[in-house]
Amino acid sequence: MIKTIEFVDGAVRMIDQTRLPMEKVFVDCQTIEDVGRAIKTMIIRGAPAIGVAAAMGVSLGADAISGEDFDGFFSQLEKQCDALAKSRPTAVNLAWGIERMKRVARAGKDLAIADLKKRLREEAQIICDEDIAANKAMGSFGQTLIADGNNVLTHCNAGALATAGFGTALGVIRASVNAGKKINVLANETRPFLQGARLTVWELMEDNIPVKLITDSMAGHFMQKKQVDVVVVGADRIAANGDVANKIGTYMVAILAKNHNIPFYVAAPISTLDLSLATGEEIPIEERSADEVTTINNKRMAPEGAKVAHPAFDMTPNHLVTAIITDKGIARPPFVETLKKLAGE
Amino acid sequence: MIKTIEFVDGAVRMIDQTRLPMEKVFVDCQTIEDVGRAIKTMIIRGAPAIGVAAAMGVSLGADAISGEDFDGFFSQLEKQCDALAKSRPTAVNLAWGIERMKRVARAGKDLAIADLKKRLREEAQIICDEDIAANKAMGSFGQTLIADGNNVLTHCNAGALATAGFGTALGVIRASVNAGKKINVLANETRPFLQGARLTVWELMEDNIPVKLITDSMAGHFMQKKQVDVVVVGADRIAANGDVANKIGTYMVAILAKNHNIPFYVAAPISTLDLSLATGEEIPIEERSADEVTTINNKRMAPEGAKVAHPAFDMTPNHLVTAIITDKGIARPPFVETLKKLAGE
Repeated sequence: MIKTIEFVDGAVRMIDQTRLPMEKVFVDCQTIEDVGRAIKTMIIRGAPAIGVAAAMGVSLGADAISGEDFDGFFSQLEKQCDALAKSRPTAVNLAWGIERMKRVARAGKDLAIADLKKRLREEAQIICDEDIAANKAMGSFGQTLIADGNNVLTHCNAGALATAGFGTALGVIRASVNAGKKINVLANETRPFLQGARLTVWELMEDNIPVKLITDSMAGHFMQKKQVDVVVVGADRIAANGDVANKIGTYMVAILAKNHNIPFYVAAPISTLDLSLATGEEIPIEERSADEVTTINNKRMAPEGAKVAHPAFDMTPNHLVTAIITDKGIARPPFVETLKKLAGE
Repeated sequence: MIKTIEFVDGAVRMIDQTRLPMEKVFVDCQTIEDVGRAIKTMIIRGAPAIGVAAAMGVSLGADAISGEDFDGFFSQLEKQCDALAKSRPTAVNLAWGIERMKRVARAGKDLAIADLKKRLREEAQIICDEDIAANKAMGSFGQTLIADGNNVLTHCNAGALATAGFGTALGVIRASVNAGKKINVLANETRPFLQGARLTVWELMEDNIPVKLITDSMAGHFMQKKQVDVVVVGADRIAANGDVANKIGTYMVAILAKNHNIPFYVAAPISTLDLSLATGEEIPIEERSADEVTTINNKRMAPEGAKVAHPAFDMTPNHLVTAIITDKGIARPPFVETLKKLAGE
């Protein structure tokens, strides 16, 4: 399996997810600004992967700061972090990764700057390794909810490519397969960016997990035909009450699941939880460029001048969520209590 | 407005809807086989337009038959009709158009074959003209359901391009605008064939009717945000109980509308009604090529070898339908009674 993101020779190497599966091209980010651009343009995407990229980016930023004075170092680091934090608004993991790196920097204020830089590099690597471990824990908890022979529908890509490895929603599927269960995946293509068609299908085919690609508009039809037993998706931010922000279309899938009495599971690490927000209404929803809707493969599909809306995420209210699978365990309603408990607060 | 279909110099001229809006190219069908291919490849699509194309195709087929004996003529015509009827399975208008032409042929069995051919040409033109008249009647009935200032969501293209002109669902919108109401349209792009992005947006922009393009996966989000007041779609076949077969994704929109207490209207001429089917379960759902899902603009978006499902239509059960707008009036539940009455049976 190709690595989503890793340190290579002082750079942060990412597989370019805008070009998969047609081309396997890697991008080496030399600076924190490079990482910010990679996040913004979705060379790397997926909330947990963005968190890891942010941490690695901060390490690159730290390396580029000259001088031996902590206060000077930290104020420059903060400025870089503020810019990086603006690259995408919805996934809370971006802010989470940055904040964790800043905490480590502050805690290391008595170190020599060279040692602090080393420490930050190590921390970014730890965040990367922890993400994979968290996904495996999620898989282990989550696979108990999946039965042998299940047809599992997923939306977007919450897989190895959306994380440092193994995946959140696809991690639950991988763990189910590893536990000897026969699983068939139905993958929504996930317009406009086609993460399902391009990334989820590719990932699962690489792992020989049976997957069938459908358009987003077919999800209801296959539920009506009783060809979906369970839905598992990822999340970009989860509010304290269990409202879930995730890729646009997730809300639609959740309503369809509810109407067909199909369990709707969200798999996300605790780092995706934002207890500072009481409800999902407060989660900022990114509006992306119209071109991503009107243009496919650099060719325009809609008339010139067409008006377009492009919210990149939507908000699924907690009453549509059967359970939230985290690396600390499975939360069930009332989420306001169970999530707090899992988060250890 | 460009004509969807018309007789020109003994040929049936169609605008090639696979190439709109990027290119305005016309296709001249010289034979009934050409018409069958045009229907199959979706150069022309939309249930009412397919009905008109079928009738015009039968006329071309009749013209190509030599001999002066009615029985010989009719048996050759029937053979051609059987082949044409197989071009697409879901829209009942195809069979309806063919049957009507066969009835006219039978009724003209005492005419000279040359006169019968003329009669068939005239009948095809009448079917075309009647379709536009039916759409205007539907618009007139349907616009009473649309309020000034409404945001109307539609799926696929049930417009002038899906008919001989004016449109069914878009006819209701046009009639509302003509009645002085301010209407904003939200157009689902309608994967995989993008009839919404390519055809609906183009048509409405040509008529200066405000339209915003969204991906199919955004429909729920905009309903949640209270930016949809009413849904109007077309239909490919309606069973006696009001179950509706229409473009894949319609069922999803209907469930979303129900969950947000938004009226869900279907606009279709009486010729789309199939009283021979008690329920929508019996409507054949066309399975189209995987390439239409994996390939956009002749470029592959999904990995080579990916398994794909491609039901081109789905079935919306009658309990999700608020009303069916026909050229004979508006049917409300219980549809099994009201549709029968409107059909005059």
